[in-house]
Amino acid sequence: MKISQIGGEFALIDRVTHKIRDRDVIVGIGDDTAVLKYKANKYLLFTTDMLVENDHFNLKWSTPEQIGKKSIEVNVSDIAAMGGIPKYAVVSICLRKDIPVEFVDKLYNGIYKTAEKYKLEIIGGDTTHGDLVVINIAMLGEVNKKNLSLRSDAKVNDLICVTGNLGQSTAGLNLLLNNIKDKRFQPILKKHMEPEAQLRKSRIISNYCNAMIDVSDGLASEVEHICEMSKTGAAIYKEKIPVSDLTKEAARLVKKDAYDFALYGGEDFELVFTISRKNLSLLKKKNEKIYTVGKILQKRKGVYLLDKDKKIRLKKGYDHFK
Amino acid sequence: MKISQIGGEFALIDRVTHKIRDRDVIVGIGDDTAVLKYKANKYLLFTTDMLVENDHFNLKWSTPEQIGKKSIEVNVSDIAAMGGIPKYAVVSICLRKDIPVEFVDKLYNGIYKTAEKYKLEIIGGDTTHGDLVVINIAMLGEVNKKNLSLRSDAKVNDLICVTGNLGQSTAGLNLLLNNIKDKRFQPILKKHMEPEAQLRKSRIISNYCNAMIDVSDGLASEVEHICEMSKTGAAIYKEKIPVSDLTKEAARLVKKDAYDFALYGGEDFELVFTISRKNLSLLKKKNEKIYTVGKILQKRKGVYLLDKDKKIRLKKGYDHFK
Repeated sequence: MKISQIGGEFALIDRVTHKIRDRDVIVGIGDDTAVLKYKANKYLLFTTDMLVENDHFNLKWSTPEQIGKKSIEVNVSDIAAMGGIPKYAVVSICLRKDIPVEFVDKLYNGIYKTAEKYKLEIIGGDTTHGDLVVINIAMLGEVNKKNLSLRSDAKVNDLICVTGNLGQSTAGLNLLLNNIKDKRFQPILKKHMEPEAQLRKSRIISNYCNAMIDVSDGLASEVEHICEMSKTGAAIYKEKIPVSDLTKEAARLVKKDAYDFALYGGEDFELVFTISRKNLSLLKKKNEKIYTVGKILQKRKGVYLLDKDKKIRLKKGYDHFK
Repeated sequence: MKISQIGGEFALIDRVTHKIRDRDVIVGIGDDTAVLKYKANKYLLFTTDMLVENDHFNLKWSTPEQIGKKSIEVNVSDIAAMGGIPKYAVVSICLRKDIPVEFVDKLYNGIYKTAEKYKLEIIGGDTTHGDLVVINIAMLGEVNKKNLSLRSDAKVNDLICVTGNLGQSTAGLNLLLNNIKDKRFQPILKKHMEPEAQLRKSRIISNYCNAMIDVSDGLASEVEHICEMSKTGAAIYKEKIPVSDLTKEAARLVKKDAYDFALYGGEDFELVFTISRKNLSLLKKKNEKIYTVGKILQKRKGVYLLDKDKKIRLKKGYDHFK
């Protein structure tokens, strides 16, 4: 049977996930990172992400520095989504035999420069060979217990907020796929090739929010995950989703819908969080740009998008096997 | 420039390794795992290994269960080589779109069965898609401070010992490459397809040994690593290297040298350790099968193999880029 026939990536993950018995595991599979007992006031975070040539990056479009940078940023984004800070990483890399040393130097420059930005130490790895370039990073982070922000922490009546424009990375990818390289699209092309984790914002938001997740598969998918884990419903107001004019223009050029990019596209790496009204007004005093896009509801109300007077059931986002 | 032109895998690793400044990192790159500060009497171990289709496994020869098992065993072997025990793992997996769900089920069966054997918990991962099957495991372990066995811990006059027959996995691979599937070779074919970490032995040995390392690239390479990190020389006595009759027979059939398999072949996952004479006699009382193959010397004496009256400078072992 094909993976797509059982329902794709998310169904596959459910299928292969076993129960965890160890009491030192606070959270196992099913959040942005695993959470482990660690110190009196801190948890240890453990996460991993694999980037595969022609799937997560393309050597035609991305420089090796950008690929190295991206491999770190996507893992830091997972740590940020828990309210934590990154500490240590191990880097596995699979190289084709025709890859020149200069490529590897530049790739590691991207890795180390990004690691330094986050005071992250690269402490190990594995170097091997194969017919595709593959980079896997596993990362440890730590989080103050009071800052831990789980997908399961959303409360009914919380507001749903995001940290920035959505759909940009998918817009960038669509431009590249259509060979549109117009200079005015540079900001969204960069968003695709050099995504950045919202660690600084997470340090502030995690003092106020309830649930948090990063946008790796589109807003719809992330809100679905929060609702599933928190046993709630949610409403997203389409007109409140921050989509930039440039993203809209790119979508028009490739004859697609910019809101579909935001809802079902991947890799924006903005943060989605839920927060009480009271805490949102406190957070807003910190002068961070925050967009309120919806509200957490009771479970029986479902998870839907409000588009003027239409009410649309949300579907899950980007799926590697569909 | 090609990677082979700068000296291959080990030169590449040196080239891309930066200095670590964090004081909580006891050991960074350059041992079987990284070692981090953790609890009063324990260190945290962090390691990663990537298995790539057609390089570390072949779907023609190995079952998905075997591939899953191997992906865990190779990481447990790194933890064992530090004197530690495995605790938690995250699994990244890249699947081709034509891979059926049943394959994935069996692969995870292999992963979970092996994890259970070691009381290891799988607590996260990443599932993605690409044109090759790739499995990356990152693993956390812990080690009692007194059991930590570093590559850099060898002392002049230590004996060099190994826990079992060497060259079997490479003999198995050579049989497969030559399409020899004779049933009597089953034990060494199994050694290639289902290598096992020597965790139980490591629990005992780590109470007595100085340096320890696992055999992933051949005895010569591992002794080289120990000598480099411990700033010593070493002599290996060829006739003392444990090579089974079956391995010798396999080598004859494929017209290769069984001792080359032991010295320069990879993936035996036996342990190599250095130990004082006094402690070796204590260890031998534990009834573990131990083979003494050489001796640690002063650095200026070099690292060499004694073959009757010939003295051969050892070269490094299996290199993915040569």
